[in-house]
Amino acid sequence: MSGRIGVWTIGAFGGVAATVAVGLAAISRGLVESTALVSVLPEFNKVPFVALGDLVLGGHEIRDTTLVDAARRLAIESRAFDPRLVDQVSSELTAWSKNVRPGFLWNSGRAIEGIADQTFVRRLATPREIIDAIKADVNEFARRNNLSHVIVLNLASTEPACDAALERLDWVEFQRRLLNRDFAVPASTLYAIAALEDGHPSVNFTPSVGSNLDAIRELANLKGVCHVGRDGKTGETFLKSVLAPAFAARNLNILSWVGHNIFGNMDGVILDDPTNKATKVKSKDSLLGNILGYAPQTHTSIEYIASLGDWKTAWDHIHFRGFLGTPMIMQFIWQGCDSILAAPLVIDLVRFIEVAAKRGEAGEVAWLASFFKSPQGTTESEFARQYALLENWAQQFESA
Amino acid sequence: MSGRIGVWTIGAFGGVAATVAVGLAAISRGLVESTALVSVLPEFNKVPFVALGDLVLGGHEIRDTTLVDAARRLAIESRAFDPRLVDQVSSELTAWSKNVRPGFLWNSGRAIEGIADQTFVRRLATPREIIDAIKADVNEFARRNNLSHVIVLNLASTEPACDAALERLDWVEFQRRLLNRDFAVPASTLYAIAALEDGHPSVNFTPSVGSNLDAIRELANLKGVCHVGRDGKTGETFLKSVLAPAFAARNLNILSWVGHNIFGNMDGVILDDPTNKATKVKSKDSLLGNILGYAPQTHTSIEYIASLGDWKTAWDHIHFRGFLGTPMIMQFIWQGCDSILAAPLVIDLVRFIEVAAKRGEAGEVAWLASFFKSPQGTTESEFARQYALLENWAQQFESA
Amino acid sequence: MSGRIGVWTIGAFGGVAATVAVGLAAISRGLVESTALVSVLPEFNKVPFVALGDLVLGGHEIRDTTLVDAARRLAIESRAFDPRLVDQVSSELTAWSKNVRPGFLWNSGRAIEGIADQTFVRRLATPREIIDAIKADVNEFARRNNLSHVIVLNLASTEPACDAALERLDWVEFQRRLLNRDFAVPASTLYAIAALEDGHPSVNFTPSVGSNLDAIRELANLKGVCHVGRDGKTGETFLKSVLAPAFAARNLNILSWVGHNIFGNMDGVILDDPTNKATKVKSKDSLLGNILGYAPQTHTSIEYIASLGDWKTAWDHIHFRGFLGTPMIMQFIWQGCDSILAAPLVIDLVRFIEVAAKRGEAGEVAWLASFFKSPQGTTESEFARQYALLENWAQQFESA
Amino acid sequence: MSGRIGVWTIGAFGGVAATVAVGLAAISRGLVESTALVSVLPEFNKVPFVALGDLVLGGHEIRDTTLVDAARRLAIESRAFDPRLVDQVSSELTAWSKNVRPGFLWNSGRAIEGIADQTFVRRLATPREIIDAIKADVNEFARRNNLSHVIVLNLASTEPACDAALERLDWVEFQRRLLNRDFAVPASTLYAIAALEDGHPSVNFTPSVGSNLDAIRELANLKGVCHVGRDGKTGETFLKSVLAPAFAARNLNILSWVGHNIFGNMDGVILDDPTNKATKVKSKDSLLGNILGYAPQTHTSIEYIASLGDWKTAWDHIHFRGFLGTPMIMQFIWQGCDSILAAPLVIDLVRFIEVAAKRGEAGEVAWLASFFKSPQGTTESEFARQYALLENWAQQFESA
Repeated sequence: MSGRIGVWTIGAFGGVAATVAVGLAAISRGLVESTALVSVLPEFNKVPFVALGDLVLGGHEIRDTTLVDAARRLAIESRAFDPRLVDQVSSELTAWSKNVRPGFLWNSGRAIEGIADQTFVRRLATPREIIDAIKADVNEFARRNNLSHVIVLNLASTEPACDAALERLDWVEFQRRLLNRDFAVPASTLYAIAALEDGHPSVNFTPSVGSNLDAIRELANLKGVCHVGRDGKTGETFLKSVLAPAFAARNLNILSWVGHNIFGNMDGVILDDPTNKATKVKSKDSLLGNILGYAPQTHTSIEYIASLGDWKTAWDHIHFRGFLGTPMIMQFIWQGCDSILAAPLVIDLVRFIEVAAKRGEAGEVAWLASFFKSPQGTTESEFARQYALLENWAQQFESA
Repeated sequence: MSGRIGVWTIGAFGGVAATVAVGLAAISRGLVESTALVSVLPEFNKVPFVALGDLVLGGHEIRDTTLVDAARRLAIESRAFDPRLVDQVSSELTAWSKNVRPGFLWNSGRAIEGIADQTFVRRLATPREIIDAIKADVNEFARRNNLSHVIVLNLASTEPACDAALERLDWVEFQRRLLNRDFAVPASTLYAIAALEDGHPSVNFTPSVGSNLDAIRELANLKGVCHVGRDGKTGETFLKSVLAPAFAARNLNILSWVGHNIFGNMDGVILDDPTNKATKVKSKDSLLGNILGYAPQTHTSIEYIASLGDWKTAWDHIHFRGFLGTPMIMQFIWQGCDSILAAPLVIDLVRFIEVAAKRGEAGEVAWLASFFKSPQGTTESEFARQYALLENWAQQFESA
Repeated sequence: MSGRIGVWTIGAFGGVAATVAVGLAAISRGLVESTALVSVLPEFNKVPFVALGDLVLGGHEIRDTTLVDAARRLAIESRAFDPRLVDQVSSELTAWSKNVRPGFLWNSGRAIEGIADQTFVRRLATPREIIDAIKADVNEFARRNNLSHVIVLNLASTEPACDAALERLDWVEFQRRLLNRDFAVPASTLYAIAALEDGHPSVNFTPSVGSNLDAIRELANLKGVCHVGRDGKTGETFLKSVLAPAFAARNLNILSWVGHNIFGNMDGVILDDPTNKATKVKSKDSLLGNILGYAPQTHTSIEYIASLGDWKTAWDHIHFRGFLGTPMIMQFIWQGCDSILAAPLVIDLVRFIEVAAKRGEAGEVAWLASFFKSPQGTTESEFARQYALLENWAQQFESA
Repeated sequence: MSGRIGVWTIGAFGGVAATVAVGLAAISRGLVESTALVSVLPEFNKVPFVALGDLVLGGHEIRDTTLVDAARRLAIESRAFDPRLVDQVSSELTAWSKNVRPGFLWNSGRAIEGIADQTFVRRLATPREIIDAIKADVNEFARRNNLSHVIVLNLASTEPACDAALERLDWVEFQRRLLNRDFAVPASTLYAIAALEDGHPSVNFTPSVGSNLDAIRELANLKGVCHVGRDGKTGETFLKSVLAPAFAARNLNILSWVGHNIFGNMDGVILDDPTNKATKVKSKDSLLGNILGYAPQTHTSIEYIASLGDWKTAWDHIHFRGFLGTPMIMQFIWQGCDSILAAPLVIDLVRFIEVAAKRGEAGEVAWLASFFKSPQGTTESEFARQYALLENWAQQFESA
């Protein structure tokens, strides 16, 4: 038996984390069904997953609020789910809120600084000091809650792109620089280091760099810990990875693929800053070339439209050439609630990586590629093939 | 070397057949690229396909026109392709038009009777007489054109549904009834019998019954001939078979799937008749349950809108439930030119089945499922898996 | 001073009536703003409207339920509004529910019979007996609630089309037939007669016939009472009456206009019956010819899709020819909540017709045309011109 | 009789001008109907318009090409119209091409400089020299072609925004500065001055400044010449001006209006430059506030997508709040061919302003507002009211 498992989220009072919390509590209480959880599908029913009721939430956050407030705002302002559900699970939300500690800012950029509660957030002099403080918080969480393992999950806002020079540093050099007061390392990487140094699997659900650096891959291998990312594939890009292979299989020539995304949640506030948006657009835009083998003109825009709240609407216009050169068009409109789409994938990732860790897997977990826009550890971009990786991994439990 | 191969189309002056003709001639002359042909994709480059320039067209038709006229109408009225292309390939079109013979009506329903040129079409007293006359036409086509093989292709209008009692008859009984003046067998089945009795592979690109009866399967096995169908998967249903598996893989619960199709070609005229439409809707609608494992409410409508000509527009509204029961929506709009989408698949089917026949394959060709809405010989409905069947079949040529 | 005004609705526990009730109570209590009420716009601020708080609801209904239940179902199942609003106004809803009496079925068709609670609904032997019973109920409502006037409002389900022979009967003959046990008069007309005979203005928000017969027009004139209809213009048809004049003003030639409507409320259940649907489609489809001066191909479909609840989605595809004969396309998708769209128009109609009645207007109120798909008393079909009629009428109060 | 009228276009070989040329010739020859011309509608049949066959084209252009080449490219690359039409009217196109003179660059911005043929375009030392050279070209055109009047039409690419300080200069000061080598006046204004100084009506179909400056208004009044602009209202903004008033009339509260435009013609190349795009977005975005009386969040994006050629596709997402605060959505997709939409309006403007000039109207022609995104001389933004201005003006000819 695996005992209780901790889930330490960076961005612990964000919309996704709040929905994860409401969902875990509501499913455990039998208030809602487990719709949208991949891990409950029949093809995975032999996998020895942790029970949803054995997950305990905690985390870091830079805004001074609570899970109850965050959940209520989603329910009322964004119509994400029935507001009465928040009342029904408020005791769990309140308990988990107490496990949340003030987060750290480091090189986080103007937009993220702008949403932080300045009297709440913590600042230390060097990256190493922050890493150690993070580790102390996580360890205290594990001890107090009597947890057998902790998974560290990045759900925080998208950071500006990091300096490309960091990518090829080795772990020795990287450690050295962590002592410098002016080392421009992304905060997402500090959280990943804190997790991996203490042997906690690290999941990066955001487009931020996190563990996607040579030095951090080296660290993970040294420690024998698994990690995975980047950027949860929830809506428009999910559909791109489903549709583009079908166009390719029919030898239909994509002339241009335009995607226009509008939404009004906190993620949108941050992505309204061009430096942060660039990180996201790159993540959404790159897979088409991989799938098609050529690079059609693409355009991906993301705009903050306050009235939409957490409802992300994407309009995609796909212009393609068919037989005899005739141009034709497919358009789709996706109207999804961002947190509602992301939260089940987050829970799935926790459950899958917890099993992987238990079985001693280390390094980047390529078979989780179907969950990510920019999967680490593989270049496979087609959804059906990514999903086959997941099914193949699960096959090992069938024979048992 | 395989020599010249005949392609005998039922519906020889229809939009699809005319586009096939323009395409074969234009590609062979180097006027257009081979975009939208699956058989030219790199994964099939070891398959010993017949060269496009070695295909010779002929067929049966119930309307007294020509390939040049049919192609010109598509180009000008429907803006399907550049009208100047018709002039450039008119010599091939004219030559092939001479290979077309008046078709037969038998139990074809009011709508098809309505579009037939009554002085052109042929009528005989029994199904057996029609079969024998079809065989004579095909044999003369092969002889005159010095063809090593002929593929028989049904591209004709959708027939009304046939009597379910026919499905389980055996071939002995079926042969007996073919002598009766009042045997309500579909014309599409007579064409399939004519093909199979003489050892020609039979491809049914329409929703009509064709060879999809126990008796005809028995005949094909007796003769050792391959056959395949039904209903080319060109647009909306193609997308259904691509998208539905992705919703299933994410455990998103489809609440309803509405598809509304509008177009204005000859196919639309025929499908405006409720009895013919029922055959088509059934073919478009059934795969969702297969893929999802449950049956959401579906609605598929097909309406004849004259102004659209050959441009088929489909609006699909997919209502689904996600995490915490939250309903969300995906919609797509597909604006495709029907003949332009169908013609390359028809050419691909000819090329693939010609190789299968050469290699001695017999019976229903299940690995061609990706081309059909209601594939014969398999219940596989997911496009990615259907396509994997095709790729796996092609693997045998890699080792060679 | 006008005192309290009664609003007697046919279909008193339907979605529209429940939303009217929630809205009147919630606005009066200051819980929500008066968004979507036309009568509160600045151009009408001199019109001596009844205060919303002075309206008292009652009515007839064929299903045994309550306003609280109907409102709660809309809020929860259809996500029409915040479910907590129902709790906040439950005392008003409960009081008004007590004013509702069992309704009458007469020649109402299979679909409406099917939704009626058979032990609740009332049946009498002749149309005249029903009319007299309706009058008794309305009079008792007025007396008990001390109302100075009553407006009778038809919000009931759409009836099958009525026999065209009724249209030209005169009132003398009509009265005679009302005594017959087998007179196939629509129930909607009986309600209108009951209203008009007692001097109550009659508003028909449905596509049913109601007062749109020569005999009833004669009755209204005899009695000097005003009446108006038919079929509230809430969504797709509203947009048609806005967009079509713009296409006409630009001399763009509409080739075809396809509208596909899906929704899942009680109205949808009834319209799933072909005889009832025909009445509605006719009402939605006829205005284009009026506006354009020619009749493009049109297609309007209405399908019951249960999962959508009260959310009506319309996809309209407008194919038009521009300069040099070039075909172009406009499409729109309308996602509106049916009751939420209808309820404010119903309240507006009550307020406008109450003023008209107070001022002695009699007969069909043509200046209310902007509220209806098939306005009585005018052939004006363009929304902007219909709205100008309303503004012009209001001008009389400016000078005062 | 009015004799032959000259139409001098700035941007004489652009897509709009080429379509105007094809259209004038093709309609005059009876090859196509006059669909999309407003001036041929019945409500204007008493207006003494110049016959289409009496219009003679000429103009300035900065690219060294011809009307035949421009028209052929539109027909073939953009599928704007049947390519065989160009052959049928090539003699008119060739004759008119000979009336085109090399244009002038002045303060035109990087993007426009980038598309100019550098050996073709003319450059002079001061604005005044350019004005005088323009006048000489126009006068020679009138003389050679024996024209009774000339209309000057700006159809050129959108310029960057001009210095706001220019707006309030008076004509005396403006004239003085025209002698300076460094006066940052837009080229569009120089063309307007050239027209007005010589008594030719000036029409600005672009978002560039043109005559929309106090000094130029003063000049027009001094000379007694009429002028009008700005920015032809062809697609998305046309629909905004049609739809927004309807939302306002229903008191539906617009929360946000997002418009995303994609297209791939020369206009798109220029608007891909942020300075030029800013001018256009401002023109498209400002009318909503005027119509609604409040300013919802708006977002208008314009992206150059090469594969679309002249087909401009706009996706608009309108988020609005209805009764009880319920948010609802309307979306539209407009697929129009830019030149095909613009050309008939250009011809109409020539015909209407020619009548106005003949009748002695001077200054800004406010009753032409329905043709423009940012109409000069009026703040009326609602299409129906703008169109009523046009109809009212035409009333004067009815009485005659």
